Amino acid sequence: MLTQPTLLLDKAKCLANIEHMASKAKNANVLFRPHFKTHQSAEVGSWFREFNVECITVSSIKMAAYFAQNGWNDITIAFPANIREWSSINELASKININIVIESTETIKALEQNLTNPVGTYIKTDTGYGRTGINAEDYASMQALLKELKTCKNLIFIGFLCHAGHTYNANSKEEIIKIMESSRQQLLALKTFMANDFPLIQISYGDTPSCSLSDNYEGFDEIRPGNFTFYDNMQAKLGSCNIDNIAVAMACPVVAKHQERGEIVIHGGAVHFSKDQYVIGEQAQFGTVVTLNEYTWDTSEQLGYIAKLSQEHGIIKMDKQNFNKVKIGDMLAVLPVHSCLTANLMKEYTTTDEQVIKMLI
Amino acid sequence: MLTQPTLLLDKAKCLANIEHMASKAKNANVLFRPHFKTHQSAEVGSWFREFNVECITVSSIKMAAYFAQNGWNDITIAFPANIREWSSINELASKININIVIESTETIKALEQNLTNPVGTYIKTDTGYGRTGINAEDYASMQALLKELKTCKNLIFIGFLCHAGHTYNANSKEEIIKIMESSRQQLLALKTFMANDFPLIQISYGDTPSCSLSDNYEGFDEIRPGNFTFYDNMQAKLGSCNIDNIAVAMACPVVAKHQERGEIVIHGGAVHFSKDQYVIGEQAQFGTVVTLNEYTWDTSEQLGYIAKLSQEHGIIKMDKQNFNKVKIGDMLAVLPVHSCLTANLMKEYTTTDEQVIKMLI
Repeated sequence: MLTQPTLLLDKAKCLANIEHMASKAKNANVLFRPHFKTHQSAEVGSWFREFNVECITVSSIKMAAYFAQNGWNDITIAFPANIREWSSINELASKININIVIESTETIKALEQNLTNPVGTYIKTDTGYGRTGINAEDYASMQALLKELKTCKNLIFIGFLCHAGHTYNANSKEEIIKIMESSRQQLLALKTFMANDFPLIQISYGDTPSCSLSDNYEGFDEIRPGNFTFYDNMQAKLGSCNIDNIAVAMACPVVAKHQERGEIVIHGGAVHFSKDQYVIGEQAQFGTVVTLNEYTWDTSEQLGYIAKLSQEHGIIKMDKQNFNKVKIGDMLAVLPVHSCLTANLMKEYTTTDEQVIKMLI
Repeated sequence: MLTQPTLLLDKAKCLANIEHMASKAKNANVLFRPHFKTHQSAEVGSWFREFNVECITVSSIKMAAYFAQNGWNDITIAFPANIREWSSINELASKININIVIESTETIKALEQNLTNPVGTYIKTDTGYGRTGINAEDYASMQALLKELKTCKNLIFIGFLCHAGHTYNANSKEEIIKIMESSRQQLLALKTFMANDFPLIQISYGDTPSCSLSDNYEGFDEIRPGNFTFYDNMQAKLGSCNIDNIAVAMACPVVAKHQERGEIVIHGGAVHFSKDQYVIGEQAQFGTVVTLNEYTWDTSEQLGYIAKLSQEHGIIKMDKQNFNKVKIGDMLAVLPVHSCLTANLMKEYTTTDEQVIKMLI
C-alpha cells in the first residue's frame, strides 16, 4: 500500500512515447539522440536500447559519468562546457565518445590547453531563445570560434547545436512550428555560409515541443528531445502531447480538508514537485489532480489542481462535488507541471506494476 | 579547488544564528524547539546541543526517523498527521517522545484505532495564514476535536500549534509584528476559553520572521523557527536578518558571458536552487550574486542577481562594470532565495573550512 508521496511511472506509456519519437526520427532519417536529463535512470535508459538508441544527451558531467558507467559510450553534454571540469571531461573522453558544447574562445583555449583526449565539439547556436549560445546570424563571432577550433588538436569541430527553448513560451502549436521553421532556416543558412571551409557540418536540434508537433526534421542531422520520455502538464498545455501520454504521476496522501475554502491538503510539496508552474486565468497551477487507483491513474476527469506549494504541503483547489468525494487518508494522483524537475527530486520511480526503479543520486 | 555547483556553509555564521535564537528563547523563558527541516543534517543538528537544545521539530516522518536514529528523542512532526503512516508513527513512538499535529476527527479516530503507543497531540491552529489548521476563532470545531481527543488513550492532547506563515507575505517589519500580535491574541483567547476543561494547554508558535523580529514571546510555551539556522535572501528582504547573517551560499562556475544582454551563465539551476523567487520591480529574482573567495563569500557588494533558472542553467544579470570583471571559469557565490529548498536539493554542505557535511537522503 502506498503511504507517502510516490512518483509513479507507467512503463507502457513511457515505451509508447519512446517508440513514437524513435520512429519519427527513423522516418525522417535523422539520428535520435534523446536527452536523458528527464529520467536520470540507468533502468529507464536501458528501455531506449529496444529502439536502437546508442547515442544520448545529458546536461552535466556527473550525468555523463553515470550513464558511461551504465554502458553508454556516445554522449553529448549539452551544456556550455565548464573549463574547471576539464579533468573529468578528459577522463570520460579517454573511455568513451564525448561531445561537448562551447560558445567562447576562452573555453576553447582553456580546454585545448588541458585535454589530452579528443572530444567532439559543437558550437552552441542561439536561434532566438536567448539563454545561451552565439546568435545564429552572427557569422563574425561564429567565424572567430571556428578559426580557434581549427587550431585545436583535441577539440574536434562537429557542427552547430541548437535548443529552441522559446517554443516553451509559445501560445499555439502554429507558433511552435514557426519557431522550428525559423530555427531551421537560420541553421541551414549558417551551414551554407560555412560550407566551403567546413563541408561536414552537422546540425543537432532539440526541444520536445517542436520535435513532438512536427515530423519535418529536414536539415537536421540529429534530434535531442528529452521531456517526451514522460511528458507532463506543461507539454499537454503546449499541445505537444495529450494528458494520456503523461507517463509519470505523483501519488499523494490527503491529510486535511478545508470545506470553507474548497481546499484539500496533501503531503506533496516543493520538495516533491519543485516549483514550476503555469498560470491559467490569474491562478498559478503546480499540477493537476486525477483519480488514483492503487498504482495507476485515471485521466478521464480532472478533479482539481495544486494552487499552492510549500516545502511539504500541496494545497489543492476542487469544486464542491469533487471535494465531497475525497476523504482524509485517500491517495490522489497529481500530474506534474515539469516532469524533469519532479523526477530529479524524487530520486526513484515506482512503476504501475510496483517495481522500484532507482535514479542517479 | 571547487569545480561544480557547491553549497557552502559558514559554520561560524550558523552558530551565531543558533546562539542568538537560543538566547532569545532563554531570555523569554520559552522552550526552544527548532525546526530541522531547514538543514536536514545530523551534523548541523548536533551543533544545537551546545545551546542545550533537546527538543526538535521536523516536517515528515522520514525526517523524524532520521533524527531519532541520530540521538534525538523528543520530536514534533509539524505537519498534519498522515493516517496512512500510522505504523511508522507507532514505531517511532515506541522508542522516543513523538508529538503529532491533527486537525480533524477522522484523523484522530483513525490514529486512535491503530496506535498502541502514546503520542503527544497538538491541534493545528490557523491564525490567518490559511494553509492548514482550524481557525483559531472557530471554537465549535475546536471543541469537537477536543471532545474526540478526550476519549483517546494514545492521543495525548498537549495544546495548540500555530505557524503564522502569513508573515512571509508581509510588506514591513511592523506588519510582521502585527501578525504575531494578532496570532498571540487569538491563541490566548482560545486557551482561556478552554482553560476550565483543559488547564494545561500549551501554545507552540513558529515562523522565522516573527521570532527573529520580536523578543516578545509572551503567551507561548515554545517557539519552532527553522529557517533562522541559515537564513536566506527572502528573510533578508523581509528584514528578519541582515545579508551577513546568511550562513549558506552556492558556489557556481561561470560557463558563458553575453555582453549584448549583460548576462552571465552559470552552472547553477533549478536542480540546485529550486525555483523560489521574489519580484523586485517587475523582475523575478532567484538569488543574489556576490564575490567568492575560494570557500568564503564577501557580502560587501551585490554584483547581480539570477534572473532566470532552467534545469542546470542560471542566468545572471549584471551591470556593465561588474560584468567586465567576471571571467569564464570564475566561481561566483549566490545567496539563495530559500535556503531550505536549496539545501534539500544539494544533499550536502561544504563548510568554509572545506569539510563535507552530509544530509538526509
